[in-house]
Amino acid sequence: MEKKYLLTPGPTPVPEEIQAEMAKPIIHHRTPQYREIFSQANDKLKKIFKTERDILTFTSSGTGAMEASVVNTLSKGDKAIVVEGGKFGERFSEICRAYGVNVVPVDVEWGNAPDPAVIKGLLEKNKDAKAVFMNLCETSTGTVYDVKGIAEVVNKTDAILVVDAISGLGADDLKTDEWNVDVVAGGSQKGLMIPPGLAFLTLSDKAWAMAAKSDLPNYYFNIKKYRKNLEKSDVPYTPALTLTIGLNKALSIMESEGFDNFIRRHRQDAEFVRRSVENMGLDLFSKSPSYAVTAVKVPHGADGAALIKAMKAKGVTFAGGQASLKGKIFRIAHMGGIKRDDLEHALSLLKDVLNEMKVSQ
Amino acid sequence: MEKKYLLTPGPTPVPEEIQAEMAKPIIHHRTPQYREIFSQANDKLKKIFKTERDILTFTSSGTGAMEASVVNTLSKGDKAIVVEGGKFGERFSEICRAYGVNVVPVDVEWGNAPDPAVIKGLLEKNKDAKAVFMNLCETSTGTVYDVKGIAEVVNKTDAILVVDAISGLGADDLKTDEWNVDVVAGGSQKGLMIPPGLAFLTLSDKAWAMAAKSDLPNYYFNIKKYRKNLEKSDVPYTPALTLTIGLNKALSIMESEGFDNFIRRHRQDAEFVRRSVENMGLDLFSKSPSYAVTAVKVPHGADGAALIKAMKAKGVTFAGGQASLKGKIFRIAHMGGIKRDDLEHALSLLKDVLNEMKVSQ
Repeated sequence: MEKKYLLTPGPTPVPEEIQAEMAKPIIHHRTPQYREIFSQANDKLKKIFKTERDILTFTSSGTGAMEASVVNTLSKGDKAIVVEGGKFGERFSEICRAYGVNVVPVDVEWGNAPDPAVIKGLLEKNKDAKAVFMNLCETSTGTVYDVKGIAEVVNKTDAILVVDAISGLGADDLKTDEWNVDVVAGGSQKGLMIPPGLAFLTLSDKAWAMAAKSDLPNYYFNIKKYRKNLEKSDVPYTPALTLTIGLNKALSIMESEGFDNFIRRHRQDAEFVRRSVENMGLDLFSKSPSYAVTAVKVPHGADGAALIKAMKAKGVTFAGGQASLKGKIFRIAHMGGIKRDDLEHALSLLKDVLNEMKVSQ
Repeated sequence: MEKKYLLTPGPTPVPEEIQAEMAKPIIHHRTPQYREIFSQANDKLKKIFKTERDILTFTSSGTGAMEASVVNTLSKGDKAIVVEGGKFGERFSEICRAYGVNVVPVDVEWGNAPDPAVIKGLLEKNKDAKAVFMNLCETSTGTVYDVKGIAEVVNKTDAILVVDAISGLGADDLKTDEWNVDVVAGGSQKGLMIPPGLAFLTLSDKAWAMAAKSDLPNYYFNIKKYRKNLEKSDVPYTPALTLTIGLNKALSIMESEGFDNFIRRHRQDAEFVRRSVENMGLDLFSKSPSYAVTAVKVPHGADGAALIKAMKAKGVTFAGGQASLKGKIFRIAHMGGIKRDDLEHALSLLKDVLNEMKVSQ
């Protein structure tokens, strides 16, 4: 079978050794054997999140953890500041509104990162704001946000900072404890090298205190129940246990390389991709490019859909643009199980495709 | 490696060919290739649910689909009749209460099935009840409920009937369309032979009409969004796609055997298990035993935990009792990937264990 190159910002390729681990005979989740695996995975996951706190695991898409961050901390009628710089920032606003939380949107031009000073100003103007929601990497635009700078601003207020790190985790810089980030959400199918189906959430004491007073209704995503179960390395409802088994294996592989080495390697890959596309005469879309995924502008006069289709015909899957960016950008991921060789191969084919499309370079 | 016998009511063993299918190189979910797989799986799933309606797929535990059945159909302050004959009936009540729905509990002694006449009486007394919640198989007691009889009663009212078929699906009798069951929830890790992580929901026109007026807040489990996405064989959020790939394979295997043959075979297995334990002098716990799982009373004077532990030492995993039934019953599942050979082997070992424990038979 011809090798396929899946270079999308989730799912990312799953290394064969992880696939093999997940394909072993299934075990039951209420057993010492599974609890041990779950506990080991949690310990290693903390090194990626750079936190000493509990990390809760939900069986859901990343969006489930985003919803959990809203429905467990806020109350009806609360005000929340939401950075809207792409599709995933907007998702936070949608979730807030679905639960009767009032949104103060931070309108950021797609491809730009929000300025901490703007958040500071909004917090001063909205002293009753209970939370600030943002992404680490806005996947739809390949943009990394300044979590550190915004955390400094939010930490001086009574509001909590909630960060969707679903696509940035394991690639972009995130120091949960050091920067005092109140809530961080993660997902399984991006930097962590396993298939989609698990979502993660970790909360600061400040966020847990807010959770004690939150009145939004919830059940499946009730974080108090997950925290209680975590005491015995368990979850309240039957977990997607094969994915946790895969996660434990993936994290072991990352640990062998060294977590920091793993992250550094992907950064070098990101820089390689940026340099390569710029050398082809292409422009980066983002003003603040992420280490997880690079968004590239479709060159003037070229057909974005045709470019992606031509790459696909050569066995390489790039992601296109979403919503208003459809046809205007394409995105190359360089996180998780994506390797330098894969990127070199894909970029060499991209050059061919651009030539075939007679795009001036 | 010594073969292990996982005879719990979820997860059930996953056949090797399904494991192999899920271990193939991962693909992206927003592609014609994946949409085709998802669409094929959905078509076959309808044969198990015995429905022509859309079936929505969530990435979650079965509990997620139970929550979806509540938050999409009811409104705050609504009244719901909930059959509480075990742990999973009680879960419906917990979900309802979490969202401000008033519960009229139907107190059924654990191990018994609710009498349709009792539901009829409650519906007459509570003409404002908007829904009746029940299980097909109450997994915690191994009891199958009379969905057909209760559907006849509920169909004569304005209320909808919501059935948790998570553990019963593919084993116990369920004719969704023929019996006019308004809402049916299913899960992946029971009769369907794949690991946990997917949950299913199907709704009648009557239930969709109620959904149009429901005011309970929700986002991740919003069924309208899932239905809209289903039009293009898609889901709103990144799905646990390896599980869907496994599901499609599992359903193909079931289709080759014949869906009805598959179900019939498991019934014969259930009858074999019942007969065998009774021949050992043991008593069934349930007055209405399910075809999915058999609950057996721990014999007088025997230690239930020790019995399960002794079986485990021989490589066989039975489930114990939950909540008030802890130590009082053990449960043998005979659905999904569990085969007659496995059951014969386990029952022969059970005989040995009972002898070793010197339990009079």
